[in-house]
Amino acid sequence: MVQLQFTLLLSILSSFTGLAAAKAGDIGTASNVQDNDKLRPQFHLTPGKGWMNDPDGLWYDRKEKLWHAYYQHNPDHNIWNSPISWGHSVSPDLVSWYYYGNALTPEDSSIGFFSGSIVVDRNNTSGFFDDSVDPDQRVVAMYTKNTDKETQELAYSKDGGFEWEYYSQNPVININTAQQRDPKIIWHEDSQKWVALIARTQKFAIQIWTSKDLKNWEHVSDFEKEGILGFQYEMPGLLKLPVENPSKGDGKTHKWVMFVALHPGSPIGGPLNQYFIGDFDGETFTPDDHATRIQDYGRDYYSFTTFDSANPADGPNLGLAWATNWQYATIVPTENYRSSMTQVRNYTLRNVDYNPEYTDLTLIQTPVLETYETKQNESLKTWTQTQEYSKNNFDLDSSSTVNTNFNGHNNASGVLDFNMTFVITSGKGWSDGLSPFTITINSDQVNGKSDNISVTFDASGQTWVVDRTTTHAFQRNQHEFGERMGQYVNPRGYRDTGAYYSVYGFVDRSMLELYFNDGEMTMTNTFFLADGRVPADITVNCGFDDSFIHVEEFKAKAYALKSNVNVDNRNPFEKAADDVKELIEKLLPSKSNN
Amino acid sequence: MVQLQFTLLLSILSSFTGLAAAKAGDIGTASNVQDNDKLRPQFHLTPGKGWMNDPDGLWYDRKEKLWHAYYQHNPDHNIWNSPISWGHSVSPDLVSWYYYGNALTPEDSSIGFFSGSIVVDRNNTSGFFDDSVDPDQRVVAMYTKNTDKETQELAYSKDGGFEWEYYSQNPVININTAQQRDPKIIWHEDSQKWVALIARTQKFAIQIWTSKDLKNWEHVSDFEKEGILGFQYEMPGLLKLPVENPSKGDGKTHKWVMFVALHPGSPIGGPLNQYFIGDFDGETFTPDDHATRIQDYGRDYYSFTTFDSANPADGPNLGLAWATNWQYATIVPTENYRSSMTQVRNYTLRNVDYNPEYTDLTLIQTPVLETYETKQNESLKTWTQTQEYSKNNFDLDSSSTVNTNFNGHNNASGVLDFNMTFVITSGKGWSDGLSPFTITINSDQVNGKSDNISVTFDASGQTWVVDRTTTHAFQRNQHEFGERMGQYVNPRGYRDTGAYYSVYGFVDRSMLELYFNDGEMTMTNTFFLADGRVPADITVNCGFDDSFIHVEEFKAKAYALKSNVNVDNRNPFEKAADDVKELIEKLLPSKSNN
Repeated sequence: MVQLQFTLLLSILSSFTGLAAAKAGDIGTASNVQDNDKLRPQFHLTPGKGWMNDPDGLWYDRKEKLWHAYYQHNPDHNIWNSPISWGHSVSPDLVSWYYYGNALTPEDSSIGFFSGSIVVDRNNTSGFFDDSVDPDQRVVAMYTKNTDKETQELAYSKDGGFEWEYYSQNPVININTAQQRDPKIIWHEDSQKWVALIARTQKFAIQIWTSKDLKNWEHVSDFEKEGILGFQYEMPGLLKLPVENPSKGDGKTHKWVMFVALHPGSPIGGPLNQYFIGDFDGETFTPDDHATRIQDYGRDYYSFTTFDSANPADGPNLGLAWATNWQYATIVPTENYRSSMTQVRNYTLRNVDYNPEYTDLTLIQTPVLETYETKQNESLKTWTQTQEYSKNNFDLDSSSTVNTNFNGHNNASGVLDFNMTFVITSGKGWSDGLSPFTITINSDQVNGKSDNISVTFDASGQTWVVDRTTTHAFQRNQHEFGERMGQYVNPRGYRDTGAYYSVYGFVDRSMLELYFNDGEMTMTNTFFLADGRVPADITVNCGFDDSFIHVEEFKAKAYALKSNVNVDNRNPFEKAADDVKELIEKLLPSKSNN
Repeated sequence: MVQLQFTLLLSILSSFTGLAAAKAGDIGTASNVQDNDKLRPQFHLTPGKGWMNDPDGLWYDRKEKLWHAYYQHNPDHNIWNSPISWGHSVSPDLVSWYYYGNALTPEDSSIGFFSGSIVVDRNNTSGFFDDSVDPDQRVVAMYTKNTDKETQELAYSKDGGFEWEYYSQNPVININTAQQRDPKIIWHEDSQKWVALIARTQKFAIQIWTSKDLKNWEHVSDFEKEGILGFQYEMPGLLKLPVENPSKGDGKTHKWVMFVALHPGSPIGGPLNQYFIGDFDGETFTPDDHATRIQDYGRDYYSFTTFDSANPADGPNLGLAWATNWQYATIVPTENYRSSMTQVRNYTLRNVDYNPEYTDLTLIQTPVLETYETKQNESLKTWTQTQEYSKNNFDLDSSSTVNTNFNGHNNASGVLDFNMTFVITSGKGWSDGLSPFTITINSDQVNGKSDNISVTFDASGQTWVVDRTTTHAFQRNQHEFGERMGQYVNPRGYRDTGAYYSVYGFVDRSMLELYFNDGEMTMTNTFFLADGRVPADITVNCGFDDSFIHVEEFKAKAYALKSNVNVDNRNPFEKAADDVKELIEKLLPSKSNN
């Protein structure tokens, strides 16, 4: 039944796919409801099947109001393997993603189409388009062609990103090296030029190139040997971001931010994303200082990149990262796919007080559960909130009861979030030992047992510890999968009695994304519950009779994809398939009428 | 019996201790054999009792051929607590350390004598000395006096570092802040001046001050906002280090290295030591680039500092660090003391090939089991090698047997080392999954059970994973004590078939120090075995039938303090006490004749 519906849908959609597009059988499926995989995140981008690594070519189609994501992909292996192509998924709301298989595929399997980016060439600077192509859909991709060397090539699409043609004069950049990759192109308004950031991976330089037409490029500067080097630089980025509170800083309302990924060699273990704040004149990026700032302190955040054309004026600067770690990405226990992206997040800057002597401009990350454009359109919502728990204004101690007990612990969707704001009320120092309390995310019961992961805050060290230890055999047996990670987190601010913190956590089956202090610091970590269990509810516990924490607000919610509300007899996956069909028909009217 | 011997010894030694020195009952004991604590490292500096954190004022007495270490100390609490004083230990060989209690103690318990350093003022620039004091024993200490603010003060000793007097014009530096500490003084030969590095902790600056006389100081420059900032900078350092292979680099035979500690806020979790290589003209440190280089990738390495006057010409540049982590330093399960320092290590620089396009000057760390001065003097050796195992030139696979089986697994001292050099013989990539082999350090049996920790190398990711998971309840229950940590390690070089690595591991009861590739990278981690077990032997295992590793050399040794060789009926601790007495009498003849 589900198969039939999809077959029908696919046969419609397959008529728009061209040479470079995916096999018909792979396209148009909603990857998050495609299989009964209790480990697969529901509100995140995962590939329909097979392997996925770096996100590439994120862009927003203003005409169709559709978000496109491409990514390093091999649909036929759930491990990194040749050929690596560009997979393709789309989303109406940045929550549900629909999988279209490969978009760009090398002509022979010894070639890799490695990471790159996509820009919307509205003014047809490239000359690839004519008036028949809507300016909002004039998309040009630059990717790294990996053979015995790495060159930068172009492809373009005239149908909104489904069918792609390759530029006849490829490559457009060839410096005769095997180590130049991951071009990220942006439009620089002041100089009216395209700017490409390209990693000279093992020289630890981010090359800056400029172009008027996307075809002819000039190498104008290098940003090199800044931050942690690791084995190699990868996946650069450059964004002009708004400052939320310019009057707290030097008054500037916008600053440029350079993003540099490294892998492996991070002190966190494996890969890392770091960023540098400064100025950019169209040719040279000049950092304000030489501090190394880390983008996410979890073990599962790499290859961050941003959506092109998502920022019309001061709208959102949206991006996502690959939410796994090369140390174990190829061996995690997901059968049908590896791996997931993070939530889409909005990126801004904020002047944050770190101590009485130091205020520092800080990258702020805010989860985007729905975009500002689709938020008001109820019909596009693919998910619904099923239950809510809240408890406010209480002193946390050994007698406090905080237990969301969603669904009586049963029928869990595996998708939860929580928001907690609290004040430290009594001073604790090292001479008092540790002063912890713990937020525990409990699973439903399978075979009469539940499992859990936890987040502990220690007031004496102002440390947050993620303990993702589970009973899953994969985690127990793999040395590489470090399970307990503690990080100092600067307070959000101070009340009369002491420091206060806020933490927002989004839990999606096998992913925990923590946002501290309204996005001033994030920690992204995957975890794997055993035996088909999924996260089901949340408890908060403190072992001390004397409270040292006053909770101002604790709120938690359980979510489900809309289809998961059991209002009829169809199983959740049948219902989801119906919703997907409706959605795609709604979103792609010009195509379904073709 | 042991008590009597010590009482006698202490009564002799106590006659030299002055006002600022320790209570007589605390001094002169060999902290590593003082108690039957199976967690206490034997070949490392630990305090005789109570709390220890940062090392301070390391110096070498050339006259007595005695190494002195002072450190943040509270003998009456095994947790950080006021008052924090400067504890004092001495060593003849940098392996065995003898504990003398407090050397510098604040006059009131609300005051802290925080970290600092000691220099040998041979030419009496300070005027504190006269001809009665041997130039090699003219020691001046600068420490941070912590009250409601932090100022820098001087003390000096005329008896080789046991009794101290305070400078009458203290403080010598007072900038009216609560955030200026940890002065490290060096002599700058070219400018004939003293140079002090002082952390302006929360402004993320290392201040550079200069002086002709150690009393009058001028603030000449700042090194600021470089590397990872964390919550605060602490414990700066600056050393001119020899380059082992200058012809591979720019030909310079020496470079200056700036050391900056941060805590908390390290991406490793907790504290971190980072270094910067460049030039120093006596006033300004100019780094060669703005890369952030990390000194040790373990979780237990902080507050690195160096011995003054240990480098006559191009002799060793010796230093050590505090081998624990603030995230759990105050709660680790050692009853009689917290915590240990690392091994003393020799520091140099080496041009290391990281890839065909990049050679980078790298800090090299080499363990100093005995100093070059005492190495030839057998009578000063306090330890002995008890057993050795070696197996060379074999392909490692599932049928290989590597098992040191020292002492038939019994009567273990808990002190081992191993050295392994191997070549990767078959190419493994991510598409092959992981390709690991594991070095396991097994404990002796207590209650019929043994425990272990392990070091795993994965050939596909070139990752080394320390798994310090044990059955100890402390480790099992403390979220903060992350147990599994994986790091990419650059190969030492290449043979015909592929990359090769060498790893040296020193295991001392509750500490594992790994030195990869002749010191190019180190990882220092503590661990806690349960029920009084100690490390006893080593096995190496590979689960694959097809070997991908050829072992060129595997060598392991078991050590004991000399007394631990069971040649007479005295128990090891009685024997050790006798040896300590003999040693101290030998080392301090002028004192025992007083």
